[in-house]
Amino acid sequence: MKVIADVCIIPIGIGVSVSREVTACERVFWEAGLKTRLHAYGTNVEGEWDEVFAAVKRCHELLHEMGVPRISTSMRFGTRVDRDQTMEEKIRSVEQKLQS
Amino acid sequence: MKVIADVCIIPIGIGVSVSREVTACERVFWEAGLKTRLHAYGTNVEGEWDEVFAAVKRCHELLHEMGVPRISTSMRFGTRVDRDQTMEEKIRSVEQKLQS
Amino acid sequence: MKVIADVCIIPIGIGVSVSREVTACERVFWEAGLKTRLHAYGTNVEGEWDEVFAAVKRCHELLHEMGVPRISTSMRFGTRVDRDQTMEEKIRSVEQKLQS
Amino acid sequence: MKVIADVCIIPIGIGVSVSREVTACERVFWEAGLKTRLHAYGTNVEGEWDEVFAAVKRCHELLHEMGVPRISTSMRFGTRVDRDQTMEEKIRSVEQKLQS
Repeated sequence: MKVIADVCIIPIGIGVSVSREVTACERVFWEAGLKTRLHAYGTNVEGEWDEVFAAVKRCHELLHEMGVPRISTSMRFGTRVDRDQTMEEKIRSVEQKLQS
Repeated sequence: MKVIADVCIIPIGIGVSVSREVTACERVFWEAGLKTRLHAYGTNVEGEWDEVFAAVKRCHELLHEMGVPRISTSMRFGTRVDRDQTMEEKIRSVEQKLQS
Repeated sequence: MKVIADVCIIPIGIGVSVSREVTACERVFWEAGLKTRLHAYGTNVEGEWDEVFAAVKRCHELLHEMGVPRISTSMRFGTRVDRDQTMEEKIRSVEQKLQS
Repeated sequence: MKVIADVCIIPIGIGVSVSREVTACERVFWEAGLKTRLHAYGTNVEGEWDEVFAAVKRCHELLHEMGVPRISTSMRFGTRVDRDQTMEEKIRSVEQKLQS
């Protein structure tokens, strides 16, 4: 089952700056071979369900290993069985309508 | 790794009423032996990471088997290594402060 | 326009414990006269759109006044025009199906 | 108070395809003069608090006028008082660390 997801991981208890931890998670998604695209409030991730969620678990484990005491993640994820769809197609479908 | 989560599963493409599908997911969490508590915009779930996410995957699979073509889930989940915490403790800690 | 919402406000940069801030926001919703129900990962809020969002804004303002440097909130909210629905009805509709 | 937000609006009860409605909301953000950037699971929006939330309300009103009976939106939004920050800076701060 393929999933398109959006992940926003918030480290708590390490101060206001969290870009070091966000960067570490971005590397986890890359190393997992997942398609990923960073935006200003999270990261899009696309792949097989088990691989996507294994990477998210690895992010939590890694941040705790890095000394983060508490993590709160908000995530959206979608599956569909009516047809295949990629992240690029989702964006293109809206951009084409915007230009017409 | 223990996780406290909040899950809101939205079936798309089956009309405005989704309570049959929400009920089916609630049963999935129960059958998985997870602590769960329904609220007006989702369900709190507490348990071991792998069990919680296996149940969420089972919800997506089950709803697709029931004929739902597309699903969009929004989920929050938290882990912490500084101390153990249950769903009841999180609520009690706020309720005690509210009463004082 | 009536809205049923679920709000999870995360103060960042003040350490791991956030129950004092969550409590302060709960009071904001009460004082605004909104129907509210705390759960383990946020709070359900029901009311007129403008009143609900004014209260959420007041929460951010209040926490910053209390010294929180950074806040990240995740929120779900739903509106419908096909019929009226309350938080209690949403929960009851699932609980009835669970028992049958 | 400035806010950086991420908005994912899900029309319910109109079938599996929702790109027409997502496009209409994208236009609402543009017409409101807000900085916006579409991604595969929502849209980043940056601006003054009241303008951002007025635009989100306008999206719900517009979709209902277009015939959508039910809408469920998930939104993240952040404010900070320790310093100014733009969407571009948030992304750049992670991308620089990724490249080093």
